[in-house]
Order: sequence, then C-alpha cells, then structure tokens
Amino acid sequence: MTELTTAAGGGWLAREEMDAARERLPILYVDVVPVRVDEQGTVTSIGLLLRAGEDGQIKRALVSGRVLYHERVRAALLRHLEKDLGPLALPRVPPAPQPFTVAEYFPTPGVTPFHDPRQHAVSLAYVVPVEGDCSPQQDALELTWFSPDEVREATVLAELANGQSALLLQALAHVGV
Amino acid sequence: MTELTTAAGGGWLAREEMDAARERLPILYVDVVPVRVDEQGTVTSIGLLLRAGEDGQIKRALVSGRVLYHERVRAALLRHLEKDLGPLALPRVPPAPQPFTVAEYFPTPGVTPFHDPRQHAVSLAYVVPVEGDCSPQQDALELTWFSPDEVREATVLAELANGQSALLLQALAHVGV
Amino acid sequence: MTELTTAAGGGWLAREEMDAARERLPILYVDVVPVRVDEQGTVTSIGLLLRAGEDGQIKRALVSGRVLYHERVRAALLRHLEKDLGPLALPRVPPAPQPFTVAEYFPTPGVTPFHDPRQHAVSLAYVVPVEGDCSPQQDALELTWFSPDEVREATVLAELANGQSALLLQALAHVGV
Amino acid sequence: MTELTTAAGGGWLAREEMDAARERLPILYVDVVPVRVDEQGTVTSIGLLLRAGEDGQIKRALVSGRVLYHERVRAALLRHLEKDLGPLALPRVPPAPQPFTVAEYFPTPGVTPFHDPRQHAVSLAYVVPVEGDCSPQQDALELTWFSPDEVREATVLAELANGQSALLLQALAHVGV
Repeated sequence: MTELTTAAGGGWLAREEMDAARERLPILYVDVVPVRVDEQGTVTSIGLLLRAGEDGQIKRALVSGRVLYHERVRAALLRHLEKDLGPLALPRVPPAPQPFTVAEYFPTPGVTPFHDPRQHAVSLAYVVPVEGDCSPQQDALELTWFSPDEVREATVLAELANGQSALLLQALAHVGV
Repeated sequence: MTELTTAAGGGWLAREEMDAARERLPILYVDVVPVRVDEQGTVTSIGLLLRAGEDGQIKRALVSGRVLYHERVRAALLRHLEKDLGPLALPRVPPAPQPFTVAEYFPTPGVTPFHDPRQHAVSLAYVVPVEGDCSPQQDALELTWFSPDEVREATVLAELANGQSALLLQALAHVGV
Repeated sequence: MTELTTAAGGGWLAREEMDAARERLPILYVDVVPVRVDEQGTVTSIGLLLRAGEDGQIKRALVSGRVLYHERVRAALLRHLEKDLGPLALPRVPPAPQPFTVAEYFPTPGVTPFHDPRQHAVSLAYVVPVEGDCSPQQDALELTWFSPDEVREATVLAELANGQSALLLQALAHVGV
Repeated sequence: MTELTTAAGGGWLAREEMDAARERLPILYVDVVPVRVDEQGTVTSIGLLLRAGEDGQIKRALVSGRVLYHERVRAALLRHLEKDLGPLALPRVPPAPQPFTVAEYFPTPGVTPFHDPRQHAVSLAYVVPVEGDCSPQQDALELTWFSPDEVREATVLAELANGQSALLLQALAHVGV
C-alpha cells in the first residue's frame, strides 16, 4: 500500500514522490527548542525528546518536522509541538516570524554543522516557551527537562543526532542562558 | 521636598541629579508594544495607552520607561507593564534579550524619527503578548485595543507623540501584520 | 525540448517535475532588498528592478529566487544578486543566517500579504548592502535607486507585484529609515 | 587636573561626575566582535584585542565602549572601532540597529554572565566585518585574528575578562560558525 502524507491545503505526496522530491529540492523544516520560562521570561529549562531512530538507536532530539504545502510556518510549529508534546502543552509561538537562526541540513556531512542523510533540509529555528503539561506522543518515547547547565554537558549533547547539538547551543546563546 | 526615584538595587537619584544626568548621558529605556495574539501566535490587536502629557495634552503612548540602576532589562519590562497595564495583565516577556529594534530619542528633533525634548534616551523595543486583564494604572487614563488595520490609520498614528508612531509601524512590520 | 534547471549539487529538475513539485511542496526562496549605505551603515537608497512579467506587464521587483538542491542559502543570495545586478555589484551578504523576516507567498490570495499564483514559496528575506556597480542582467530591464522617502510613495509601492511592497516596507522598518 | 570626557553633542562629564553617574544609572555601551568574512559573508576569523587592564594584567577584549550624549549608536560603533583598530580598518556596520543580543554587565558578580566592577553597563552587541588593515591603537597592545575553532579554545576564552567569553560564544552562535 502506498503511504500518503496529507498536507494542510489538500496537496499530498505519495512516499515515492516525496522521496523523489527529496533528491531534487531543499525541503522546508522547522526546528523548535521547547523551554520552560520563569515569570520574567528567563529560560529555566530545556526540553529534549527521546526517540528511537530508523536505525533502532535511541537518540535525543528537538521538536522538528516538515512544513507542508499550503501550511503557514506557525501552523507547522503548532502541529509538530502538539505531535511531540501532546495537546496540553500550551506552547507560546512567538508573534514574529523571524527565526533565531536558519539551520541547513545537508545530505553530505561537513558542509555545515547539520547533517541529514535523507535530504537537504532548510530549517527555521525557534525557541518556544511551553506552559502546560507535556506528554510525549507517537514516536517520542520521553520528554526530559534539563537546566541550561545540564543540557550543555558533553554526555547530553552527544546524544543529539544530525548536529542538533549545535542548534541547541545556538538557542541557548540566543536566549542568553 | 525632594522627589526620590528608588532604584531596584538600592541606588537612587534626586530629581535634580536625574535632570543633570539627562543633560550628560544617554538614558536607557525600554519600549513595549503590548499585543493580543491568537492561538497560533499571530497578533490580532495592539494596545495603546491614553495619557495626559506634561503639557496637559492627551496623547496615545506605548508602554515605556527607564531601566534603573542594577535592574535587569526584563525586570524593567515587567515593572513598566505592571505600572501601565495593572497586575493582572499576564505579559509574556520574550525569552531572548534581542530587541526587535533600538529607538534613539534625541533632544534635537530630526536626528532620528524619535524625539524626546527632555533627554537623549536609547530604548530597547519589544513586542510583548499579554494574556490577562489589562486595566490602566497611575497616569494612564485608558488602554485601547486596535486591530492592525485600525492602528495604522493616520488619525491614530497622529495621536502618538515623540515619533512612537514610527516605532509602532516597525513593530507591526516585525510581526508581519 | 525539455528545459532543465541545473542545481548546484548535481540534482536537476525537468520543467514538468518542477511544476509537479510546486503543487505539492513549499518551495524555498530568498528575497533580497539591495541597498546603498553611507559610511556609518545607514541606508541611503534602495534598489528596485524593473522586469517584464510573464503576462507582459512591466513590474518593479526585489532580487528574488529559488534555493537549489544542495545550495547554501548564502550561495543562493549571491547567485541571484549576480544574476540580477551583474558581477560587479560587490554585495555584502550579512555574516549571520538570521533573516529579518520570513515571507510566505501563498498560491491563494489573502492568506498572507504575499501571493504567488505559481506556487507556495517560503522566502528568507535579507537586506544586503551593495558597494559596486550594478547593471541589470537577463530579464531585469533596469535597476533604479530610490531614497527611503521616494520608495515609500504609493505610486512606487503599487508597481511591486505579489505583495513585495509589504516586504519592502518591512525591510525599511527593520533598518529604521 | 580634571579629566574631561568630551561628548559628540557638546555635553561632557568631569571624571567625578561620571563616577557619580556610574553609581546611579545603567550606562549604555556597545560591544563589537570584529570579524573577517569570505566572499560569501561567512565568518572566517575573529579579532581579539590584547589590553593592559587597570590592574596591570594583560587581557583579551572585544571592541567595546560607551555611547556618548547625543551620539548615534552607529557613530559610537565607528568611533570605538577606529579607536581600537585604527582608521584603515574599513568596518561594515550593519544597516539595521537590531543587536544580536544585549549584554548586561552588573557590578555584582553572578547576576548575569557579565560583570563590570566599575558600573552597571548595558551593552548592545554587534558582529562587524572589517575589510581593511587593522592596527591596534591607544591602549590596545595587539590585535590577533583567530579561526572560529581557535577562538573557542578554553585557553583563549579564559583570557577574556568580565564575561566577554560568553558574549563571544553568543556571537559565534549567531553567525553559525
């Protein structure tokens, strides 16, 4: 059976077509660093997902995913946040579309700090405070909150795949913790 | 009697001293554009204060004020938001310290779009979603919410003093509405 | 004959395949507002292209184009700048990948201020100072420099297609002129 | 003799008055990370100054200094760049006033990563490409260019005072190298 990927605006891609597109075009992604903030807005903790990768290995990951045809970037942010953190996470998507950085994942390692063997993905990266209850969904096994100091530890950073440790450090630098 | 301005960290300035400093140093300010957002984070309305100026004229204004000695910028944001919008406004101060722009108010008109006859003020400008109930406090007579289209009308912009209409338009451009 | 679009990293798309992808995926673009700056970095003028559209109408436009498979965003910026402004323009692409905004062009008008009847394009927008000699290339008929005041005139803004007048105003707001 | 600090707009402060202001008001600063970029705008090296501190110790430092009364922020950037790197450095001050971060130097250590025993300084931080010849001036003994990898080494970071190593890492994160 052909797996279909339904897009927000009615378009869809069969798995084979998506595979073909992935060999020809940069694919637009969003990356989200979910954070807890105190009453002044200072980041107090950072949430990382635990996922089973396609190779069976357990890895930490940011909230991340594709922007679909005819989908607003902020709708994609909310969809992936809900998919990974559950429907009660109460994310506060920032009012401005300006990302804190753009991460370019290349299929060839070493072009940038970011690597994705499946595709050339260009990802708009945002820090998003979440105020509600988070419960991992679907293929996410667990969500763990780390303090800024804890998340910077080499052992934690090493568990992030595809160069997302670099993106996490950029997010910490951006929020100044 | 000498009016004292108490600073967060213990320092204070008599009115005369503050007046002297204002003739010699740029004074650090924050400007806040308070907004309402929908569940996707899109700005739906913008709040403007109505104030009686020192000359008795009624003017619209952004939430704005000085950063005190030994006060964090985000503490200053919260203090001025609470002073103008009341204690139940529930502002969501952004997690990153990066302002969307820096507004330079010069005592001489025409140097920049911003003008402050009292002083050279340099203001870090932020867009801050507020989720709670706002009630104008102290010298603010009223808080009015405008849609992005309404707030852009020439009659509304003309009611903002000191070039804050330019700052408001910059904020709208930044959030993309 | 099939028109081929060669991509930087070896991939290519036949016109038919690109048309198919355009109906299924958001396409990654860059938009550039070329500017002249004075010795302090203040924007003194903004460059707009004059182009003959597919419908034969003459329109003003920003420097704009697709990011190719396996192409860095900054390489795409330089490629489109050279394509439109010529090889002697000496553009100063900013050191950080953070765009000043993200423009979402929808095939359906009215979803955002931006509209592209051909596709759903998501564009990273940058202001790029150019220091050299600009000469329009290929399908650009002319490059005209406007002062910030001139470029804001309703007659000029009306000549920009696809909502790029909104993007231009966002760029002016971002640079504070 | 009283040391006078002449301000751009005519105001000046005797050393005693400046000392008094420093105990009462946050002082506005700019911090600049001078960089070399390649033709695509990617940062290839970062310049650090070698200075003799007031305590006689030799320290690395960013280009940094006060914004004067009636001085534009971009004029302050150029003045400090010229003061430290010489008149032939050809800095490219960015067209937008948005800093990549705001560094809050507190007289009390530990409030933020930044510390300044003399004062509460709030600093707008920018990355500025320099294209010309740099020669250290005045109290700067030397300017050394480091690759991104070199400048991240613990021994180099340890030579930066007042928490400027944190600011340098934030700048590297911002430019994505």
